[in-house]
Amino acid sequence: MTYTTHDMEFSIQASEDKLSISWNGESIIEHTKSNPFLYIGFGKETVNMYRGNFEIKDYVEERTPLRFIRINELEDNKLVAAFSTYNENSLPILYMTIRKDSGRLVIELENKDTTINRFWIRIKASKEEKIYGCGEQMSYFNLRGRNFPLWTSEPGVGRDKSTYVTWLADVKDKAGGDYYNTNYPQPTYVSSKKYYAHVEATAYADFNFKNEDYHELHTWEVPKEIVLEGARDYLQLVEKISAKFGRQPELPDWVYEGVILGVQGGTEVVDQKLIKALESGVKVSALWCQDWQGKRITSFGKRLMWNWKWNPDEYPDLDVKIKEWKEKGIRFMGYINPYLAVEGDLFKEAENNGYFALNEEGNTYLVDFGEFYCGVIDFTNSEAFEWYKGVIKEHLIEFGLDGWMADFGEYLPTDLYLSNGEPAMQKHNQWPVLWAQANYEAVKETGKLGEVVFFMRAGYAGFQKYCTLLWGGDQSVDFSLHDGLASVIPAALSSGMSGMGLHHSDIGGYTSLHGTKRNKELLLRWLDMGVFTPFLRTHEGNRPYDCVQFDEDEETLAHFARMTTVFTHLAPYAKTLVAENAKSGTPVQRPLFLHYEQDPNVYDIQYQYLYGKDVLVAPVHEEHQNTWEVYLPKDEWIHLWSGEEYSGGTYIVNAPIGEPPVFFRKNSEWKELFHQVRSL
Amino acid sequence: MTYTTHDMEFSIQASEDKLSISWNGESIIEHTKSNPFLYIGFGKETVNMYRGNFEIKDYVEERTPLRFIRINELEDNKLVAAFSTYNENSLPILYMTIRKDSGRLVIELENKDTTINRFWIRIKASKEEKIYGCGEQMSYFNLRGRNFPLWTSEPGVGRDKSTYVTWLADVKDKAGGDYYNTNYPQPTYVSSKKYYAHVEATAYADFNFKNEDYHELHTWEVPKEIVLEGARDYLQLVEKISAKFGRQPELPDWVYEGVILGVQGGTEVVDQKLIKALESGVKVSALWCQDWQGKRITSFGKRLMWNWKWNPDEYPDLDVKIKEWKEKGIRFMGYINPYLAVEGDLFKEAENNGYFALNEEGNTYLVDFGEFYCGVIDFTNSEAFEWYKGVIKEHLIEFGLDGWMADFGEYLPTDLYLSNGEPAMQKHNQWPVLWAQANYEAVKETGKLGEVVFFMRAGYAGFQKYCTLLWGGDQSVDFSLHDGLASVIPAALSSGMSGMGLHHSDIGGYTSLHGTKRNKELLLRWLDMGVFTPFLRTHEGNRPYDCVQFDEDEETLAHFARMTTVFTHLAPYAKTLVAENAKSGTPVQRPLFLHYEQDPNVYDIQYQYLYGKDVLVAPVHEEHQNTWEVYLPKDEWIHLWSGEEYSGGTYIVNAPIGEPPVFFRKNSEWKELFHQVRSL
Repeated sequence: MTYTTHDMEFSIQASEDKLSISWNGESIIEHTKSNPFLYIGFGKETVNMYRGNFEIKDYVEERTPLRFIRINELEDNKLVAAFSTYNENSLPILYMTIRKDSGRLVIELENKDTTINRFWIRIKASKEEKIYGCGEQMSYFNLRGRNFPLWTSEPGVGRDKSTYVTWLADVKDKAGGDYYNTNYPQPTYVSSKKYYAHVEATAYADFNFKNEDYHELHTWEVPKEIVLEGARDYLQLVEKISAKFGRQPELPDWVYEGVILGVQGGTEVVDQKLIKALESGVKVSALWCQDWQGKRITSFGKRLMWNWKWNPDEYPDLDVKIKEWKEKGIRFMGYINPYLAVEGDLFKEAENNGYFALNEEGNTYLVDFGEFYCGVIDFTNSEAFEWYKGVIKEHLIEFGLDGWMADFGEYLPTDLYLSNGEPAMQKHNQWPVLWAQANYEAVKETGKLGEVVFFMRAGYAGFQKYCTLLWGGDQSVDFSLHDGLASVIPAALSSGMSGMGLHHSDIGGYTSLHGTKRNKELLLRWLDMGVFTPFLRTHEGNRPYDCVQFDEDEETLAHFARMTTVFTHLAPYAKTLVAENAKSGTPVQRPLFLHYEQDPNVYDIQYQYLYGKDVLVAPVHEEHQNTWEVYLPKDEWIHLWSGEEYSGGTYIVNAPIGEPPVFFRKNSEWKELFHQVRSL
Repeated sequence: MTYTTHDMEFSIQASEDKLSISWNGESIIEHTKSNPFLYIGFGKETVNMYRGNFEIKDYVEERTPLRFIRINELEDNKLVAAFSTYNENSLPILYMTIRKDSGRLVIELENKDTTINRFWIRIKASKEEKIYGCGEQMSYFNLRGRNFPLWTSEPGVGRDKSTYVTWLADVKDKAGGDYYNTNYPQPTYVSSKKYYAHVEATAYADFNFKNEDYHELHTWEVPKEIVLEGARDYLQLVEKISAKFGRQPELPDWVYEGVILGVQGGTEVVDQKLIKALESGVKVSALWCQDWQGKRITSFGKRLMWNWKWNPDEYPDLDVKIKEWKEKGIRFMGYINPYLAVEGDLFKEAENNGYFALNEEGNTYLVDFGEFYCGVIDFTNSEAFEWYKGVIKEHLIEFGLDGWMADFGEYLPTDLYLSNGEPAMQKHNQWPVLWAQANYEAVKETGKLGEVVFFMRAGYAGFQKYCTLLWGGDQSVDFSLHDGLASVIPAALSSGMSGMGLHHSDIGGYTSLHGTKRNKELLLRWLDMGVFTPFLRTHEGNRPYDCVQFDEDEETLAHFARMTTVFTHLAPYAKTLVAENAKSGTPVQRPLFLHYEQDPNVYDIQYQYLYGKDVLVAPVHEEHQNTWEVYLPKDEWIHLWSGEEYSGGTYIVNAPIGEPPVFFRKNSEWKELFHQVRSL
């Protein structure tokens, strides 16, 4: 008995004891009795969370290959197979339905043994294959050669076990992190064979791309389904990925009008900072004040009050001031997250109504956020979900905020109890999706989509259609590869390959700990890079006084004036990129292979990006550099600052502060706009 | 069908699908279909060695419970069972023969599937149970609550991931180590249920004592057998353990005559040091000169030439001088290890004769020992083994050495080729046994057993009968818990519970790296402890000029004079302890429960020991202490230095340098000897 179906995309072959699936002529799934591709098992995990940093250990007691297959049903577009562990006649332990769904190959799984809580699937690999995606990966863009645990968490401070800062963060706070830690993981990868694979599961996962001849995708549940989809080229592939997860709407026009100044300290202080900026010629589109709802001081640094409403003590007359600023073309942005500090009145209201997740004793589960405690809004409780949307609508949108940081989402403790009865271990990864959804619906239901923008750092598969903008989380205020300026480039690229095409980062980074302080060079280099993203926002950092700010001195202000002028000048181009992302899911910041797939040299480049198809950006991510090495794929390029022409190849170019290595295509339809930059 | 055998020790019950073994009325092995106790599997390891530090990762592809048992043979003292994975009728994958062998329960295993390379066995545990042994464990004496990978290696520098030294050692040399790293691991544990379990295997192992209700013993091969043996009390238990592995002979009388001065620098220099020591009243039994065969300087510090024969350039007239010293009652000791540096003539001889282990290309495998390279004598080649014994006989014993450090043994690389065809992965752990055997036979065959003593740091199950003395390896020259002075106490205790009852350590420690330097306090405190062991030997350290030495100043010399006087005074007592160890395997340094098993407080004490049954030692292992807290089990005790009487309990006692907290039993038959110490 042999079964074959074939179209231009996937081909399936099945016989009594064999199954094989090919994509584009290459085998990607291969099952025989001696080389099974599925394993099931049973494991016991231990999970320790300390302030969003998770120590997760697994103890796999059983891991059994599913050697025996039986093909049960064969239809044109559907195949049902049963797998068992012992022999062909024993009771099947897992059923698999493979079906075509508008070009996608969907592998549905049904688990007959509910004690099974570990699952492995092997997908065939080739030696030269590259792998991308898996959400927002900050250390490596090409994931080949490593495994990637997928669990939303704090990304860590330092994220590199060989650095002193990482070691100190580990020893003092268990917070050092490692290359795979991220706020936004996703069980979806993209192969250079031009297909993507998505595993529909929310449990802890670990995707292993270390092996030469197979990838092994591991989940702590039997996934509902595994989706495979391919394309002719990478542009089409990202279009399909974004179609699967949903696309982000366009950003409001006002975000292109200048920098969003991340400032704090109360109405008077931020107004003075704004005036100083404007007087210095800095183009400002908005003020972003995290502490609009109050602040507290902890040993970590300046923290917020976590009671999500205007704090008139901290910001007197803010209600009036917001309108005044808006008339002058300056928007006001705030901050919220899905937790409520015990000291606030919103906490009391939520607790009285039973809106919090509970602990073992049936009381409100309190999470330690670093010297203060918070309840966790239980988004599986639809009343709580609606109530929190109401908080956003009433206290943020109606109050006049045009946007906010929708922070956190990664901290769902695994030992709390949710109202819908789902285990927190299964829900943890999905939490950022629910958090995005709450924000999105609040904005949409008030008719503000396209005018209000919120930005998140946490994410997971499916949050793409809800999240209006991603930011790269809390980088260290330094030039370190794994946690500094450089890291946000692979972060943007991998997010883009995962269906989240709008990315930006805190200009200057955020985390000052264990001696790291933001110097002027870092702030200016980060600004130079941020100009070539559609959303330019500064952050004072967790310890503002340890960090150089935009108003440090005249030179810094002048630099901000000049670079925000470049940013606003490029707005027409930036808008088209954002529109392309909204329409077809082409990310705004793109890996070079998206447009130069014939060039074998571009597949491992992770510190350069295409800003749309016409601009190539190679940010200077090291200290004390005046020149920078750039790789240009074969094309005709113009250096943005000198107007000099380049063809493909490796070049060392001048790259002083204020002239980041940026090139545009000579034949771009936007070439006039780009040429004008030299005269700004 | 039910089968029962019972005697005072072990009881076995077996029926068609059940097996249970009890010891002393408590179940220790329990098999049912739903709760099997054996797992088999298949894994692929990656092993990276850097200068004796191993990074070992496992990837377990299959792990399957052996659910189905069939009892095949039943005899009075023998039971044969067959295990299979799938069902009771499928082909057995593992056969088990359980038999009594003079009080021991021997579980023989026969593996029918040669692809199996992973094995797990679960032994029932109880919550309050304590576990000891597993060779020489330097961080924890009671092993409960942790897992212990068993693989002979460098123990690491720092051995504590929370210390800066460990982090630096990790980052610079992959050499930081962890709590379980040891030169001498052993797959044998002792339970506070008064039985021991030994797994007869040499492959990589990992014994996991984390679970409340079972211990899981994991080996990277199916063990040949598992031995269980119990006893009425701990003294009898150590007697049985030492009977299993063999006991150490008594030490030569001359070792009790004073300190063995570890000095270097050539005949003239060491002679001057000896004269200085003797003139200062220091009792000296021997000179120990590592560099008798030459030295080299590397970035690590002073290293040796590794060509194991007298170097007359470094030590002119040593042949004559050895005799002169011996006439004065001063022995001479040297150094050897199982590697030969490429520069030496012994290397050439060995290579010409094919005595080295080979690399993949069939050439001599060269090991990087830190800026120099060596060949590995292939002890599986009997000619090479005999030749190396000959080197020891000719160049060490016949030359006049009365002992040596038989260093290393842990470095056998896993990718070399041995002449007998055994995989190096399987042979690695056994290498120290072969190395001990070579030394032992060389000494024995020259009739020098009891006169010549060699001391080793590496070990494994079975080396006990060959190794004349253990030393604790290369501690850091500091007071750190996991790698300093303190660590040699659990090291001695766990070795003693594993059948190696003679232990000592480098007085003052060895490793000065990353800023650690030996101060005077450390040297004196270490000496104060060493006096209460039967072998007192100093080491200059790897960086002698960063370390305070015995001849640092008059005060230090006077301290050495006084403490070596105490040491020699205690010689009659020490000799009886060493004799007891030789006769019945009672270790010289004993955990308190060996004599006070009724006291529940003593089972977790790892920084005190009994020096024989009459002396309790509680070394001061922290800096800047003048008093020290001591726990005394219920008895009548006399404080060695003050003569004050104590009964059982916790006390804070005066403990200045030179008066380490030491107590003797009031009713000891040696009490006069101990009382005399106060007047020394």
